[in-house]
Amino acid sequence: MHGNMMNTQLLVIDLLDYARQQFPHQEIVSQRLEGDIHRYTYRDAWQRSCRLAHALEQLGVGMNDCIASMAWNTYRHLELYYAVSGIGAVLHTVNPRLFADQVEYIINHAEDKYVFVDLGFLAMLEEIQPRLPTVKGFIVLTDAEHMPETSLTNVYCYETLLAAVGEEGDTYPWPRFDENQAASLCYTSGTTGNPKGVLYSHRAMVLHAQATVSPALLDLRADTVLMPMVAMYHAGAWGAPYAAPLAGCKLVLPGSGMSGAAMWQLIEQEQVNVGLGVPTIWLTLHNYLQEHGISKVPLERVCVGGAASPIGMVRTYQEQYGVYWQPIWGMTETGPLATSLPPTPAIMGLPLEQRYALQTTAGRAAFGVEMDIFAADDRVVAHDGESSGELRVRGPWICSQYYKNDDLSSFPNGWLATGDIAVIDPEGYMRVVDRKKDVIKSGGEWISSLEIENIVSLHSAVNECAVVGVKHPKWDERPLLLVVLNKGMQASETDILQYLSGKIAKWWTPDAVEFVRELPKTGTGKVRKNELRDAYINYLEERGV
Amino acid sequence: MHGNMMNTQLLVIDLLDYARQQFPHQEIVSQRLEGDIHRYTYRDAWQRSCRLAHALEQLGVGMNDCIASMAWNTYRHLELYYAVSGIGAVLHTVNPRLFADQVEYIINHAEDKYVFVDLGFLAMLEEIQPRLPTVKGFIVLTDAEHMPETSLTNVYCYETLLAAVGEEGDTYPWPRFDENQAASLCYTSGTTGNPKGVLYSHRAMVLHAQATVSPALLDLRADTVLMPMVAMYHAGAWGAPYAAPLAGCKLVLPGSGMSGAAMWQLIEQEQVNVGLGVPTIWLTLHNYLQEHGISKVPLERVCVGGAASPIGMVRTYQEQYGVYWQPIWGMTETGPLATSLPPTPAIMGLPLEQRYALQTTAGRAAFGVEMDIFAADDRVVAHDGESSGELRVRGPWICSQYYKNDDLSSFPNGWLATGDIAVIDPEGYMRVVDRKKDVIKSGGEWISSLEIENIVSLHSAVNECAVVGVKHPKWDERPLLLVVLNKGMQASETDILQYLSGKIAKWWTPDAVEFVRELPKTGTGKVRKNELRDAYINYLEERGV
Repeated sequence: MHGNMMNTQLLVIDLLDYARQQFPHQEIVSQRLEGDIHRYTYRDAWQRSCRLAHALEQLGVGMNDCIASMAWNTYRHLELYYAVSGIGAVLHTVNPRLFADQVEYIINHAEDKYVFVDLGFLAMLEEIQPRLPTVKGFIVLTDAEHMPETSLTNVYCYETLLAAVGEEGDTYPWPRFDENQAASLCYTSGTTGNPKGVLYSHRAMVLHAQATVSPALLDLRADTVLMPMVAMYHAGAWGAPYAAPLAGCKLVLPGSGMSGAAMWQLIEQEQVNVGLGVPTIWLTLHNYLQEHGISKVPLERVCVGGAASPIGMVRTYQEQYGVYWQPIWGMTETGPLATSLPPTPAIMGLPLEQRYALQTTAGRAAFGVEMDIFAADDRVVAHDGESSGELRVRGPWICSQYYKNDDLSSFPNGWLATGDIAVIDPEGYMRVVDRKKDVIKSGGEWISSLEIENIVSLHSAVNECAVVGVKHPKWDERPLLLVVLNKGMQASETDILQYLSGKIAKWWTPDAVEFVRELPKTGTGKVRKNELRDAYINYLEERGV
Repeated sequence: MHGNMMNTQLLVIDLLDYARQQFPHQEIVSQRLEGDIHRYTYRDAWQRSCRLAHALEQLGVGMNDCIASMAWNTYRHLELYYAVSGIGAVLHTVNPRLFADQVEYIINHAEDKYVFVDLGFLAMLEEIQPRLPTVKGFIVLTDAEHMPETSLTNVYCYETLLAAVGEEGDTYPWPRFDENQAASLCYTSGTTGNPKGVLYSHRAMVLHAQATVSPALLDLRADTVLMPMVAMYHAGAWGAPYAAPLAGCKLVLPGSGMSGAAMWQLIEQEQVNVGLGVPTIWLTLHNYLQEHGISKVPLERVCVGGAASPIGMVRTYQEQYGVYWQPIWGMTETGPLATSLPPTPAIMGLPLEQRYALQTTAGRAAFGVEMDIFAADDRVVAHDGESSGELRVRGPWICSQYYKNDDLSSFPNGWLATGDIAVIDPEGYMRVVDRKKDVIKSGGEWISSLEIENIVSLHSAVNECAVVGVKHPKWDERPLLLVVLNKGMQASETDILQYLSGKIAKWWTPDAVEFVRELPKTGTGKVRKNELRDAYINYLEERGV
């Protein structure tokens, strides 16, 4: 028996509609690619999104059409988030840091009709345009004055298109449709195989936005000044473009400015109190602040995901800046936000060292996300804080299948198998101990490459490092540690192994340390461990270790 | 094209499941009907709800069965909210303050299978049991020791049923089903006709809970100590039983204790910081505090709906107690919460008098609720803060039809016509100026009975009052003011009319004032204006005014 409730659908356009009514004067501040700062309000964003919807219509864009964006974090990209999805088309956020052949692959796989592109990413498109048969044209996200010379054909200027719509276009009859309609598309770039697409629905994005603003995740409010230092082309800037209007945050969009100086300028000038970013971003900021002797910052929290939270950074942010380091966990396939450790009264009441330790976990699942850990035989692993298993999650904003891809091996029994190996403690706190494919199987037991890397990376001479499993005649696999040293610093194999001693189980100690100049990376900056494994697979045998 | 997201359904049991994982030690404190205070945690509530689900199963309760409760605000009623809906049955919260024939009508209309009843409401059931053919039994919400003598047949003791399940019943395999499945049922009692049922779905209640905890409505957090002084039998205590677990609030359930002394005891002892209730409740509390010379209270906010917020109370709560009076608006058909005026930085930054004035409005719509005002010809009325029209709302937790009722006259064009006459100002603040049926049509124009009543009720000699439209030869209708004076106080017609002078338009001035001993009321305490109109319809002619 169904309830007698209206079947109002959850659509992303309603988030911006809410903001323009409830928070019409709240600001969105963008560092433009043109070099200057742009500011406007949610009411302005709404009007321009309406105009953009008219412009898309005039370009012939309709329901289900995929529209690509290759763009940084700016107000124009935000307008695309709402106008494209709002008319029932699908915004495909393309990661411009991918290699040209990957960009070509995903634009063709998605069958994108148009590409909206920032100044600076045209060269790659010029190179691959001949091999993009579905793309009817390119819209450069700038004004007439800044339109670049380009060999691309069918090129439009974004501001010219919007201006042509005129003021009559400041409203738009947004269609109502099924909330399961696709709203946006983002490809993950693994270290092997072709990128795989995650097709988000309107329902998923609205429910994810509600979870995101809640105290269990980002705790966004009307007095939050939010700066996403995560890209809008990568896992939707962690949903910030949808969550900020719902909460009525002031939104600070840093454009392409990811340097310490650029970040600090915006943080100080706009009084940013919550930042979103990977650990490296906050290390960059810390280095900048330290170099300039700055300790007083408007930041209250940095929300940190995409990699493990090093306890040193947790401590540094608290003790030097009074900033709470808030770990979050998620991936493109999970909305992306799934877990966090917000600074609740209970957490803030803990002894400091205990709290810091918890801040290196991924926290607990938000309402709507169910998570568990599983052994190889699919049995649930105990939540004892020690036993590890593959992390699986499910919920209304979790991917159930890759786009146009029949391989369901990542979706066993209705769960998403995350590929992370994790432990969950009796209180529900989850800690990722490794990527499944990076775990080293030594003598039938698992060694976490991630845990070793986390410790080694704290060594003052170490810039970055990677641990991979290489062939061993007796133990099947043994860990090999690859280290890139800081410029001008030195350390020996013995130094590094002594540093590890006592911090990990003796049998986890790498069999060898190899110093290298750099580590191979993917387009999104992840270490290509498969490449390292291939290159070093016979290392122990060859070196006779 | 659908997104590739899991089709996880939104079910109310997940709210309690979340709380027992995320806030296992948070307390639920109840004033028991047995006289003592009971305290336990969300984890306990979860275990006992599991046991109750087993007990319901053993009673033969299954999907779609309607189960009635006639109960105050206690932990046992909370368990019914989760266990009954959790197994796919429907919790029908019966208002025990209704007249016996109405209770009989709605139990039969809902075809309830069992009735869970608090100590104190058995007499009415004993009277009507012979005329309740669908009811198989009655479960008294108490333990064996307190089981009363009763002439009811098929009577069970709640605690005995739960004890029989035993510890093996501390978990339950909650079924997953369509989120549109009905979860609960509540009848509205208008002043005319039979009560009408609102059948809430799981989806509606989960989305309503998410809106309720958000800063736009009740802004509930893990450090909130929430005391609903609105009954769990009436519009679901404004959704508090669903929202509190989601936010991890400490929940204080006052049982039947609605006196000033009972309220204050719990507020002080449990350090309640947010209360929910109608204006009368907060007047009762204020009278008690004043009588006892108390001005320091742990309350931070009282959230007030169900009737207009008098500016005197807004001011008194702020200036005497430092408590923010937070108006909300809603009705049984709207979840019930739809609008509010939370103390945002923008609101708190206003000059005090301007803020107080806003606090007498209903505030603005929460995310998910769309509202507008309509003229008699269905055209939208301007949001100018002056033009009034019928308030209509829509959204995922708004009723689309009454239960087993084909009359769709309250649901024009996919909206719920609320029966309230309201104005909306350019900033989106809504103010109810009258009930549609109570508006006085004088010479083709409208006079708001509510606005006149609000002013007259501020007169120190007036206990309560009502304005109704009565026949007039020239103007069709003219307002008649009926006044109940405070005990031992006196005022003349001239006094009252002089008090009104200058506060309303001259042509709104009532043609006469009649002093009466009491006003006729409905089971839920609303003045029966239709009865007054019938009784006084020829008043002006007879009195020769």
